[in-house]
Amino acid sequence: MKNLLSNRIQNVPESFIRRILKVSTQSDVISFAGGLPSSDLFPVQGLQDACNKVLEDNPTQTLQYANSEGDDELRAWIAKRYKEKQGLDISVDNILITNGSQQALDLLGKVLLNEGDSIAIENPGYLGAIQSFSLYQPKMHTVAIDDNGLNVEQLTQVLADYKPKLLYTVPNFQNPTGISYSQENREAVAGVVSQFDTLLIQDDPYGELRFSGAQKSNFYELLPEQTLLLGSFSKVVVPSFRLGWIVAPDWLMKPLVIAKQAADLHTNYFSQQVIFQYLKDNALDDHIEKIIQFYGKQKQVMMDAIKQYFPADVTIAESEGGMFLWVALSKEMSAMALFDKAIKEKVAFVPGKPFYVGDETEENTLRLSYVTVNEEKIIEGIKRLGRCINQG
Amino acid sequence: MKNLLSNRIQNVPESFIRRILKVSTQSDVISFAGGLPSSDLFPVQGLQDACNKVLEDNPTQTLQYANSEGDDELRAWIAKRYKEKQGLDISVDNILITNGSQQALDLLGKVLLNEGDSIAIENPGYLGAIQSFSLYQPKMHTVAIDDNGLNVEQLTQVLADYKPKLLYTVPNFQNPTGISYSQENREAVAGVVSQFDTLLIQDDPYGELRFSGAQKSNFYELLPEQTLLLGSFSKVVVPSFRLGWIVAPDWLMKPLVIAKQAADLHTNYFSQQVIFQYLKDNALDDHIEKIIQFYGKQKQVMMDAIKQYFPADVTIAESEGGMFLWVALSKEMSAMALFDKAIKEKVAFVPGKPFYVGDETEENTLRLSYVTVNEEKIIEGIKRLGRCINQG
Repeated sequence: MKNLLSNRIQNVPESFIRRILKVSTQSDVISFAGGLPSSDLFPVQGLQDACNKVLEDNPTQTLQYANSEGDDELRAWIAKRYKEKQGLDISVDNILITNGSQQALDLLGKVLLNEGDSIAIENPGYLGAIQSFSLYQPKMHTVAIDDNGLNVEQLTQVLADYKPKLLYTVPNFQNPTGISYSQENREAVAGVVSQFDTLLIQDDPYGELRFSGAQKSNFYELLPEQTLLLGSFSKVVVPSFRLGWIVAPDWLMKPLVIAKQAADLHTNYFSQQVIFQYLKDNALDDHIEKIIQFYGKQKQVMMDAIKQYFPADVTIAESEGGMFLWVALSKEMSAMALFDKAIKEKVAFVPGKPFYVGDETEENTLRLSYVTVNEEKIIEGIKRLGRCINQG
Repeated sequence: MKNLLSNRIQNVPESFIRRILKVSTQSDVISFAGGLPSSDLFPVQGLQDACNKVLEDNPTQTLQYANSEGDDELRAWIAKRYKEKQGLDISVDNILITNGSQQALDLLGKVLLNEGDSIAIENPGYLGAIQSFSLYQPKMHTVAIDDNGLNVEQLTQVLADYKPKLLYTVPNFQNPTGISYSQENREAVAGVVSQFDTLLIQDDPYGELRFSGAQKSNFYELLPEQTLLLGSFSKVVVPSFRLGWIVAPDWLMKPLVIAKQAADLHTNYFSQQVIFQYLKDNALDDHIEKIIQFYGKQKQVMMDAIKQYFPADVTIAESEGGMFLWVALSKEMSAMALFDKAIKEKVAFVPGKPFYVGDETEENTLRLSYVTVNEEKIIEGIKRLGRCINQG
């Protein structure tokens, strides 16, 4: 019966990450591989209090079917936060609650992409987005990123040559590289995109996790008509609830809501109410400040350990926040080969290769997460990794 | 920018149901329209206890990212229940947890359907399935149902002529008609389907809500290699958690897991753990027995009221359980016209028309849910509806 499978599913790249994560979750492995937030920081008591409160105050509505757009109070909270933190005027009517921001990618693919349509993505870029879009069988065109942001010349060329419907970006603390687009780069990118019928996706799961440096413009400010914002509670409150959202213009909201309804009727409504209650009863800013202090310290510990244990010619991409370091070994080294060695030493990471689309791979790169394991393990893991690198 | 929309989203039928449900949720309307379980029956205390237990016993894992397949213990519970209740041998490895069974439909469409592929569906049939599949742009072929089940002659013809990849069925207490396929009909259907490369979907959200009559064979028993089972906790425990599942053969599981991962990484893991804890600490059979008693009584109240207030030539499809009555008015009447009149009298229902695909509509039919409002309102609502019908 295997011949019943659709073309689209046969085209999806095998997720190398899945294999890595499987190895990495063995309990004796020190893993820098996954993007798992530190579980020491989950606001357990706050969430438990919120569960009890919504089930005591309003059990029948909390447990019943709900609307596809998402909880109105939660959407209003999100709109208000955009205003307070970034000065953006976003209407509740333009916010759709999704099962994590991953689902926002799927819904956008669904309502926008025909087979063979062009899209543009960062190179290297977020694997989840690549995988999600690939199910809609677009032609993917890559735009290189460096410490400053997107390569504007390449972007201009791609937009002019292929007229992509979507440009996917993670301008703050990008996955996998950790870099942020500079203010000048954002303005230049917005200027170029404004000349085309292209929608720019600003995926922003880590935006609030800034350790240093100044906040830059949201693309919504620079390019309001063409920007779609994706957001998520996974990195700042709790991942397992799968709560994210998309901000989209009026003309796109109705199709997105239809697609959402067809996909799963609506997002878990109990969890929407619990997180709204949590946000009402707790100061999110204080919680985020705690995360920032914690992750910032762990990042520094990892940087120091790399300096001590890795060869001197190793470079790390400039990063002001988020969860990842992007490391480049000396040119002749292969991070894939290093992975096989490291896993024998019970250390895991993600080689750079799977984050690249097409042939322009930099095989000597790797991504290290500094948020999942504690300081002691960070030092021990980097020490082991350094040993593997030095063995050549 | 509207020209950026995909073909598939422009092809989705406007959901008439959405409009109806919007009108129906006005608080002064007596609604027989939605398929909302009675909120009086939600096991609030049991779920609250379960929330507290999982957050106290295992907070870090409960709140962290989880695997795409779903919680292993919950999957094992589902496998065990299939064995106990229906004698089916199903491996944990063949169960994927989804965001309600609606997501199972979307994932199946995604991994199986190319544009233009044929699928076969019941007529009248479940709108959510029709909407979900329509996003994958298949050719839909209908097979009529009557009190006995699928029209086997028509089914044979459709399978022979169009070789559909999927046959979508709700053999127990079908939505919208409430009918169940007879044992003979199931055997005949399985016999026909076995001759083709067609997968039969048994969607079974109401299967446990049997008020009378004997359980019939699950298609998995009759046609194990070609049957996909969909299940849901929405109608027997809680809808807002959005927890359903799909049972699929080995060759289909890997593609489904990839599609699930691309769609939203995984289903809300906190809710999976809470419902598993609830199922561990409470007797689901006792809870279901309570639902059956309650719904069975309300069904009888509605039948009696119809007898009293509707014209004598009205017929009701034979039903042994579930949530709906399927009413046929005298041939010349239009349920759509009746809807407009009824809504002025503050009563809502769903006309039969939107449940039909293609031209073979029976305009005189309507669906009444007897599970959402209480007995007093059922009687008052049917009285008002009767008045509207009698006005012609």
